[in-house]
Amino acid sequence: MWMTGLSGAGKSTLSTAIAARLAAQRPVELLDGDDVRTFLSAGLTFSRADRDTNVHRIGYVARLLAKHGVLVFVAAISPYAETRAQLRELSTAAGHAFVEVFVHAPLATVIERDVKGLYRRAQAGEIERFTGISDPYEPPASPDVEVRTDRDSRDACEAQITAALAARGLIAAA
Amino acid sequence: MWMTGLSGAGKSTLSTAIAARLAAQRPVELLDGDDVRTFLSAGLTFSRADRDTNVHRIGYVARLLAKHGVLVFVAAISPYAETRAQLRELSTAAGHAFVEVFVHAPLATVIERDVKGLYRRAQAGEIERFTGISDPYEPPASPDVEVRTDRDSRDACEAQITAALAARGLIAAA
Repeated sequence: MWMTGLSGAGKSTLSTAIAARLAAQRPVELLDGDDVRTFLSAGLTFSRADRDTNVHRIGYVARLLAKHGVLVFVAAISPYAETRAQLRELSTAAGHAFVEVFVHAPLATVIERDVKGLYRRAQAGEIERFTGISDPYEPPASPDVEVRTDRDSRDACEAQITAALAARGLIAAA
Repeated sequence: MWMTGLSGAGKSTLSTAIAARLAAQRPVELLDGDDVRTFLSAGLTFSRADRDTNVHRIGYVARLLAKHGVLVFVAAISPYAETRAQLRELSTAAGHAFVEVFVHAPLATVIERDVKGLYRRAQAGEIERFTGISDPYEPPASPDVEVRTDRDSRDACEAQITAALAARGLIAAA
C-alpha cells in the first residue's frame, strides 16, 4: 500500500490506524517516510535525485518484507509520478501487488492544518525544497485508491482503503 | 546470523548455501553486504563512519524482517567490534537473537584465494581502504560461532552454523 500525498494530508495517520487494526489479522508493517529517512537515508537532501534514492530504498525494504508475506504500508510523500511508476513495476515484477493510494487533501487544507508548523516555515523560506511550496508534487493520474481527507471522515477514508485491500484478497472481507 | 569476516573468507558462500537449505523449513533471508550496499548505501565510502552507517542500515532491515519471523543471514565484513556490539544490543533490545558468526580464514589464505582479484588490486594500491590490507579488521573476541574456512570443509562449517541455530531453537534440530 503506497500512500502518497502532501505533507499533512494524513498518510501516516491513516496508515498507522489501519496497520494497527489489521495487525491481529495478518503480518503488517508501516514504513513511515520520516522514520525511514533517519535509518536509511541520513545525509540525503531533498533534491529530485535524493528523494528518488530515498523512495527506492523504502521500496527495496518493502519488497523484502512483502516477499515474506508482510502487508506493507509506505507513508511517503513520493512526489514524482515516474518514480512511483518505477516502484509499481519493481513490485509487480517481484510478484507483489502495488496499490497506489492517493491521500488527497488540497494544498490550502494542509497549509491551514499545518500540524507540524512546517508549511509556515516553508512559506517563510526557512525550509528549502518543501513539497507543495517550493518543490513539486505530481498527483497520481489514476491512483488505485483516492481518499479525500479534507472532505471525508477518517473512518470513511479507512473504510475505502480496507475495501481496496479486501478487493485484492490482501485481507479478509469485512 | 551476523556473518563477519574478511572479504573472501566465505561469508556469502556459507550464508547462501545454508539459507537455501533452510528455506523449505522456515522463512529465511540473506542480506549480502555487496548487494545491500547497492540498494541502501550507494554513495557511501569505506570510511569508518560510512561503513558503520552501511552496517547499521543492514541491521535496521534485518530487525524489520526478524520482527516478522524471518531468520536473517547478514553477510557483511562489518570490521569494527564496537559496531557489531551495538548491533547485538539493538537486536537484543528488539527481542531478537543475535548470533555473531566469525567466518575465519587467515589473511594469507584469502589473499591466496583472491576470488575476485580484489586483494591483488588493493595490494597494488588500486583500491583504497581495503579491509585487511589498508583498513582494519577487528576479529570478534568471543564470537557465538567461529568457523575456520581455511581448515574445515564447507560441509563442516555449515554443520557448525546450523548446530548453533538448532541450539537456539531457531531451526529444528537435525
